Formats: sequence, C-alpha cells, structure tokens
Amino acid sequence: MAEIPASHRDLIENSQVVLLATNGADGYPQVTAVWFLLTDAGDVAISLNTARQKTKNLAKNPESTLFFIDAQNPYRTLEIRATARIEADPGQVFAGLVGAKYGSNVSDHDQPGDERVAVHFTPVKVNTFG
Amino acid sequence: MAEIPASHRDLIENSQVVLLATNGADGYPQVTAVWFLLTDAGDVAISLNTARQKTKNLAKNPESTLFFIDAQNPYRTLEIRATARIEADPGQVFAGLVGAKYGSNVSDHDQPGDERVAVHFTPVKVNTFG
Repeated sequence: MAEIPASHRDLIENSQVVLLATNGADGYPQVTAVWFLLTDAGDVAISLNTARQKTKNLAKNPESTLFFIDAQNPYRTLEIRATARIEADPGQVFAGLVGAKYGSNVSDHDQPGDERVAVHFTPVKVNTFG
Repeated sequence: MAEIPASHRDLIENSQVVLLATNGADGYPQVTAVWFLLTDAGDVAISLNTARQKTKNLAKNPESTLFFIDAQNPYRTLEIRATARIEADPGQVFAGLVGAKYGSNVSDHDQPGDERVAVHFTPVKVNTFG
C-alpha cells in the first residue's frame, strides 16, 4: 500500500470532489467528478449506484486512478493509482455518511430498485506534482 | 467526430490545464494536468516529450480522455473521449506555440536529445455535467 505524502494530503482534505478514472468498456478511460469520504481508516471511499457505468467498470477492472487538483493552483496535483474494493451497503448506511458530509442525499437521483455500494480505494502508486 | 456542446466550450477556452487520462502500461489509467492549445482547426492539442510515460501510453493506445473542470464550480465538467494523433514537431514549432500561450518554454525541463511531438485529439464521445 502506497503512502500519500504529507505535502499533498490537504488536497484530499479540502477538495470538494475527487476525479475518478476507470478503465472504460469502450477502451477509453472514463473520468468523472464524484463525492468522496476520507474514512477513519484513512482511505478514500465513494458511494456508487450499481447501475452506473463507472461501477460496472470497477467491478470488471478494479485498477483505477483517483486524481485531486488544487482549485487555487492547477499545477498542484495528486494522482493515486489504486485498487478498488466494492462492498455492499445494506441500508445505505455508507451512502448516508457521504450525504452527511455534503449536506445532501447521494441517492436523490437514483431510480426505484437501484442499489448502492461503498467503494474503497487502496493506493498502489502515488504521484505528486507542484 | 463528436461535437463539444456550446454550453461547455468555455471550459476549454478558460481552463489553465487539461487533465489527460491515458491507458497506463501498468493497467491503471494515468492522469496528469497538462498545458494545451485550442487550435485554429478547433481541436485540443498538446506538446509532449517523447520520453514521458504518457507519450508512450498514447503511442501504444491512442484511446484517451480529456477532462476539464470548472475551477469555480467542480460540479461543472466536460469529458472528451478522444483518439490521439501523434505528429512530429520539427524545430519544435508547435511547442513554441504552446509556450507562447503560457508565456513560458515547454521544453525547459527537457534533457539534451529529448524530442517533442504535437498530439492532436479527435473527440469520439463527449459527456457534460452541470
């Protein structure tokens, strides 16, 4: 498990979103901005609807990359190549924690019958710039 | 060739950097922030040192993704899945154009003997948020 250098940990603490890159089914990386939690265990975790393409991508290929960019200085970035671990979220307890951070409901746009999972990322390689 | 919706073209015009995601040799997407030009032909193009991993990734697999994020509103994003076309840059003419945009020299950190290429991206699929 790779360490996040102290010099760039503030990017995780202060960023509104994390950019998640997955290996897309069409051969192109899929990149989206998503809400996230920094868990007590110190890992980045997100709540995903299982109907979304990015969730399917991660289920097929857990090799993914988290990217944080300093909103004040776009030359200061943190790239975390990570292995995704998908866990069930019975009762959407984890989704509720993410929603509480953002003062919102992460499942607002879910359809009836949609399910949510908690996805935890284990850093494998970390690159910092700036 | 996919169209960039007018609603999000300002992200290309106003962003300091583009986030480039390539298919990494290690199986993980590689994401970095890079300088770019919007060419007269209307495509996004960047100058790369051929010694860099991202250049090698694109040479092996041109399927890549450009991502722009609104610095004022991280929920407003533009994802462009694109095919990269790598062209020689004799005399570093193109590199000079990129440097002129940023008031800098893109090859400042190049090593003696390093070569530069111009990489143009043809949009294949475009997703907007916010």
